[in-house]
Amino acid sequence: MAIFKAETTIKVPFYDNDPMGVVWHGNYVKYLEIARCDTLAKIGYDYMDMKNDGVMYPIAKLDMKYIKPSTFAQNLRMVTVIEELEPSLIIKYEIFDEKGEKIFKGKSMQICVNIETKQSVYVAPQRFKELLNV
Amino acid sequence: MAIFKAETTIKVPFYDNDPMGVVWHGNYVKYLEIARCDTLAKIGYDYMDMKNDGVMYPIAKLDMKYIKPSTFAQNLRMVTVIEELEPSLIIKYEIFDEKGEKIFKGKSMQICVNIETKQSVYVAPQRFKELLNV
Amino acid sequence: MAIFKAETTIKVPFYDNDPMGVVWHGNYVKYLEIARCDTLAKIGYDYMDMKNDGVMYPIAKLDMKYIKPSTFAQNLRMVTVIEELEPSLIIKYEIFDEKGEKIFKGKSMQICVNIETKQSVYVAPQRFKELLNV
Amino acid sequence: MAIFKAETTIKVPFYDNDPMGVVWHGNYVKYLEIARCDTLAKIGYDYMDMKNDGVMYPIAKLDMKYIKPSTFAQNLRMVTVIEELEPSLIIKYEIFDEKGEKIFKGKSMQICVNIETKQSVYVAPQRFKELLNV
Repeated sequence: MAIFKAETTIKVPFYDNDPMGVVWHGNYVKYLEIARCDTLAKIGYDYMDMKNDGVMYPIAKLDMKYIKPSTFAQNLRMVTVIEELEPSLIIKYEIFDEKGEKIFKGKSMQICVNIETKQSVYVAPQRFKELLNV
Repeated sequence: MAIFKAETTIKVPFYDNDPMGVVWHGNYVKYLEIARCDTLAKIGYDYMDMKNDGVMYPIAKLDMKYIKPSTFAQNLRMVTVIEELEPSLIIKYEIFDEKGEKIFKGKSMQICVNIETKQSVYVAPQRFKELLNV
Repeated sequence: MAIFKAETTIKVPFYDNDPMGVVWHGNYVKYLEIARCDTLAKIGYDYMDMKNDGVMYPIAKLDMKYIKPSTFAQNLRMVTVIEELEPSLIIKYEIFDEKGEKIFKGKSMQICVNIETKQSVYVAPQRFKELLNV
Repeated sequence: MAIFKAETTIKVPFYDNDPMGVVWHGNYVKYLEIARCDTLAKIGYDYMDMKNDGVMYPIAKLDMKYIKPSTFAQNLRMVTVIEELEPSLIIKYEIFDEKGEKIFKGKSMQICVNIETKQSVYVAPQRFKELLNV
């Protein structure tokens, strides 16, 4: 179930392409981070807010499925969906090319960690929850 | 079951670390590719051999699990295991830090694709199989 | 003297920052390429047009001067100026932070190379010159 | 004049190559950092020692000259020469391919900066100088 959904567009830079002429698979991790940061900015709760609340959200798991390749100068549309906030932050990603075809699916799990104690926290910061109405 | 197993060591470069002072999670995809290429070189069947056999092996799926962080200048030991060759190439990866603790687990699935027709091929090239005794 | 001038804005992604909390110096090369590709797109003569004209423009020299650091989520304004088209393509870059302060200066030299013969060509393709009125 | 000279070898990873099938020019900045860190390790004065001495050495200038391309899986030999230690750290780099041909030349200038005051310091830490006999 979607707690929050956002869209982000990026243009594939030249340097992300490999000798096959397509985006090297590892570069999608960057696109996911751009999508995630943009989504958090739209919620109004970014990395700086996390820090101010004494937590950080390191990536614990990342699953990626490559459906079709993308190439230099393509405009990619990324759909980011926050699925769960507690006990861990689960985000799903889909990337579509200019023809509207789905080229990529991904899912990340992030653990809320107390910056000082380095301990996992299974409840999200109050302000994050309020902004998401959960 | 392991068809082939190899070990590769890398030293974490400065530029792979993020503002938290640890390796940014997306950089592990690079380490996996270094491990995979090193493993293929040890088998004696690299990207050039694939090309000569008219195939390529794009990544179709990649799952990563981050257990502990790693930091600048650490020597990481990567254990790469080829688990399946057909119908698709399944490789598992484990990364250990200098204390011998497991910090990362990953799994990739690659599809054998005919370079000319761009069609998936569910059998591996003969020479690849012979080198792996399968 | 400026043959053509364009502006490009980018937002600094998290993964471009190093343990000092600032953009790692090597990542500016990516920003310059984004600025250069955007400038060429505005001229109407991109990498694909070069290819169609049988040439490519590899980087032969790149000089960079780092004035101030930039950090995650900053919007950077890049000013790109094409200074010379022949015998080689000389482009100057300046990057400004959100306060309008200049944080970076760079200069690239690119050689026009015939794709087939791999020989340097000291005259630019006719269409490139026409679009730039030189 | 060379204050210190060291050699470092790297193997070009697949993901550093662009659609032209050669190393993307921006990736050489990474190779220079690997060469610089290896050189400092050989001197016995690395980033951690700098930190312990209360200084850091951000890159202020970087000039690069690309002579020939390099490609996937090539072993590159990098020769790093520390030319000046004061008032700023000047390092020159040359990269040679497997045939012994020079493919790249670079030069970096780093400023010694006091970590706390963020002020430039024009003298190098005593221990750094002793290790280099200057």
